[in-house]
Amino acid sequence: MARIVEIDDPDDPRLADYRDLRDVELRKSLETEHGLFLAEGEKVVRRAVEAGFAARSFLMAPRWLDGLADVLDTSDAPCFVLSEALAEEVTGFHVHRGALASLHRRALPSLDDVLAKARFVLVLEDLVDHTNVGAAFRSGAALGVDAVLLAPRCADPLYRRAVKVGMGAVFALPWTRLPDWYGALPDLSARGFTTVALTLAEDAVPLEDAVAGLDKVALVLGSEGHGLTPRWQESADRRAIIPMRAGIDSLNVAAAGAVACYVTARR
Amino acid sequence: MARIVEIDDPDDPRLADYRDLRDVELRKSLETEHGLFLAEGEKVVRRAVEAGFAARSFLMAPRWLDGLADVLDTSDAPCFVLSEALAEEVTGFHVHRGALASLHRRALPSLDDVLAKARFVLVLEDLVDHTNVGAAFRSGAALGVDAVLLAPRCADPLYRRAVKVGMGAVFALPWTRLPDWYGALPDLSARGFTTVALTLAEDAVPLEDAVAGLDKVALVLGSEGHGLTPRWQESADRRAIIPMRAGIDSLNVAAAGAVACYVTARR
Repeated sequence: MARIVEIDDPDDPRLADYRDLRDVELRKSLETEHGLFLAEGEKVVRRAVEAGFAARSFLMAPRWLDGLADVLDTSDAPCFVLSEALAEEVTGFHVHRGALASLHRRALPSLDDVLAKARFVLVLEDLVDHTNVGAAFRSGAALGVDAVLLAPRCADPLYRRAVKVGMGAVFALPWTRLPDWYGALPDLSARGFTTVALTLAEDAVPLEDAVAGLDKVALVLGSEGHGLTPRWQESADRRAIIPMRAGIDSLNVAAAGAVACYVTARR
Repeated sequence: MARIVEIDDPDDPRLADYRDLRDVELRKSLETEHGLFLAEGEKVVRRAVEAGFAARSFLMAPRWLDGLADVLDTSDAPCFVLSEALAEEVTGFHVHRGALASLHRRALPSLDDVLAKARFVLVLEDLVDHTNVGAAFRSGAALGVDAVLLAPRCADPLYRRAVKVGMGAVFALPWTRLPDWYGALPDLSARGFTTVALTLAEDAVPLEDAVAGLDKVALVLGSEGHGLTPRWQESADRRAIIPMRAGIDSLNVAAAGAVACYVTARR
């Protein structure tokens, strides 16, 4: 059973994991340095713990204790209880759905382990926006992706916003970082995956045709602004496009990712 | 040619259209009362004017004047020029891509006019989040939707965030409000559209099957939280689902909308 610790001082040093949650740069360095990540909201906190992540602590207003009692029962970590006003003072924002947890990160699995049973892999290059990374995990999990691979510079899927938008799909899908950016796609090809880059390039073919009949597929998505780097476009086995009405902006990456996963899963 | 008006007082009453852009409730009443809406960013401002919306005024930092010179040439409205710091003080947020315009709303077209040439209509019930409304317009425009219909309580597609997320697709697609919520779907059926409600209901069939071979289709999406109301689910001709992996949360409405438009356009 988690130890209930009532807090009435917003400067209490035990709350260090929860400070200034809206300061993205500060949070990135703090979370990496301390090997932690945050889960927000009752459902996501529950999923993190049920997926086996060890809690460093919990933080919530009193009215959330009952709903998470069974989750708290399984942990020895402290549960800091404080008013919603005080929680807002510490975190710097209004905590929706009332509960937060700080959890230990785990070492990332090897590429071999992540790919062992995978037939449909989603590969994200340099996505910047945590919301889009979370959306990619959620859509991927729902639409048949077996694993996710991230380029070295892709935004962190365990960042709070990504976890929240993804509704905890990052706990359900196997994922890891690619150790090498330059050779990443040829390496996947050597492992038996046909790499299919989603791009607006001139020679791109309709995605449905690009993936038809393939066994093991790696669907490759680029960043919000400029899409895939030239290196990744050129080193992919195939270049594919989602057919769109002429004269219209391309889909945003979350929408394109969802459609692409749907099409690829039904290849 | 727009009249260039240099501003150095953040309280200048001529800036009334641009105040407190982050205060959603205030903006909703102000914009409705004065029959205006805001376009943000060089590309979206350009598209609004090119789509024929008359500007009440423009507001931008000096460095955006050149890029929008051809747009300003077509208007008689004042263009308020002020420093980025002052712009932030007035609007309450950092104006990305530097330019804003306040434009006159137009009377909404009749349902008859909007449907005259449409074979694929997207119908949004009570979406709350302007981001999702904008995403629905953008995905719909890219993926083959001919027109959009909004339930009486659906969030405003001309709200600044919706326009921005939609990259101005709201100017390109014919759309209007449905006058009557209760009878909306039977009315569409009477007009020759097969109404297909996207839902997790027990009797929902895969969307691909639900739309196969249909001529005129109305694809119906519900709100972020609870989906479609029971009335709309029951009064639709068909109930359909995007097949998903078991045990996974449903897709978010933007992702589901994109996939559903893709599937329906290829019926």
